[in-house]
Amino acid sequence: MLLDDTPLFEPSLLQDLDWSSNSVPFSPAISPSDPGPGLLLRPLCTADFNRGFVKVLSQLTRAGDITPEQFINKFEHMKKTGDYYVIVVEDANMGQIVATATLITEHKFIHSCAKRGRVEEVVVSDVCRGKQLGKLLVSTLTLLSQKLDCYKITLECAPNNVAFYEKFSYNASDDTYMQCRFYD
Amino acid sequence: MLLDDTPLFEPSLLQDLDWSSNSVPFSPAISPSDPGPGLLLRPLCTADFNRGFVKVLSQLTRAGDITPEQFINKFEHMKKTGDYYVIVVEDANMGQIVATATLITEHKFIHSCAKRGRVEEVVVSDVCRGKQLGKLLVSTLTLLSQKLDCYKITLECAPNNVAFYEKFSYNASDDTYMQCRFYD
Repeated sequence: MLLDDTPLFEPSLLQDLDWSSNSVPFSPAISPSDPGPGLLLRPLCTADFNRGFVKVLSQLTRAGDITPEQFINKFEHMKKTGDYYVIVVEDANMGQIVATATLITEHKFIHSCAKRGRVEEVVVSDVCRGKQLGKLLVSTLTLLSQKLDCYKITLECAPNNVAFYEKFSYNASDDTYMQCRFYD
Repeated sequence: MLLDDTPLFEPSLLQDLDWSSNSVPFSPAISPSDPGPGLLLRPLCTADFNRGFVKVLSQLTRAGDITPEQFINKFEHMKKTGDYYVIVVEDANMGQIVATATLITEHKFIHSCAKRGRVEEVVVSDVCRGKQLGKLLVSTLTLLSQKLDCYKITLECAPNNVAFYEKFSYNASDDTYMQCRFYD
C-alpha cells in the first residue's frame, strides 16, 4: 500500500460551498478556496501521514503510535462509508498540515431517514494560531453539513469554547453529555 | 426490493456477549438471550418495517413518513459500513417491535486509530414499560461497544436520565453538548 494524494472525498464539495451564506465575520476575508497566504484547505489524503497530520492531532489528545498501514486502513474504511469529511489546512511552502477538523454524517431512521452531522477533532497547530483557521474550519464544516442535507449538526466542547461555537449558530443544549471510558 | 429477515449485523455478537460482566442488577434476571417471557432481542432486519419499528421510534421523536424503499436504502447503507448496531426487542406473540436502541462505532485517527461508541435512539414502547427493557438495551450495547474494542462510549441525555445512565458507569462530562438545527 502506498501513501498518495487521493482525496478522502470529492474536493469540489468544498470549493462549491456557498460561502456567501457564511454568517461569521472574517478579517481579513478568507474562505475555503482562499484560506490565507501559502495555505490550502482540502480533503485529507493518505500522503498527509508524512506531512505531520498525526502530529497536529496530538496537540488535541493522545494520538498514539500509528503505522502507515493502520493509517491507510482507517482512511480506506472512512472513504468506503462516504460519511467522513476530514479536512486539512496545508502550509504549501512547508508541505506540512497545520490544522484539521472532521465532519461525520450519522444515519438515522428518525426524521424521515435523515442524516445528522457531528463535528469532531477540531485542531489548529500552535505554530499557526491567529490566522482564523479554527473559524474557517468550523464554518466550512457547518455549511457542508447543511449542503449534505443534515437536519442538525452537533458537537461537544469545553465550557470555555461555548462562546466560540455560538458564533456559528450552535446553542448549548439542555441535554447532558455522558461518557463511559474503557481505556485511554 | 423485499423486506426480509436478514440481520443488520451478525446475531452471535449479541448471544456471545459475556453477560456475567454486566454490572447492573436485574430482578427478575433477564439477558440478551433471555429478555423475558415471549420476547426476543436481536439485530434489526428490514421486515421490522412491518412490525411497527418506526412507530416505536415515533415515541421518541418525529419519525416522519418513511417508504419501504427509503427504509431498505438506509438499512443497506448502515449494513455496508459495518458500524451500525441497531437492536430491537420483539414481542414474538404479537410480531411487534416493542423496544430499540442503536450503537454506532465512529472511527478515529486519534487514540491509535481507535473506535468510539455512540448510543442513540433508546426507546421502549409505552405498552411495554416496567420490564427492564431500557436497562437491558443499554447494558447490552455498552458491553457490545467494549467487545468491539471502542475506547469509550458516549451519549447525550435529558438531565433527568443522568442517574439512569450512571448505573452503567457513564459519567456526566464537563463538556457542553451543542447543536445547530437546520430543520425538524
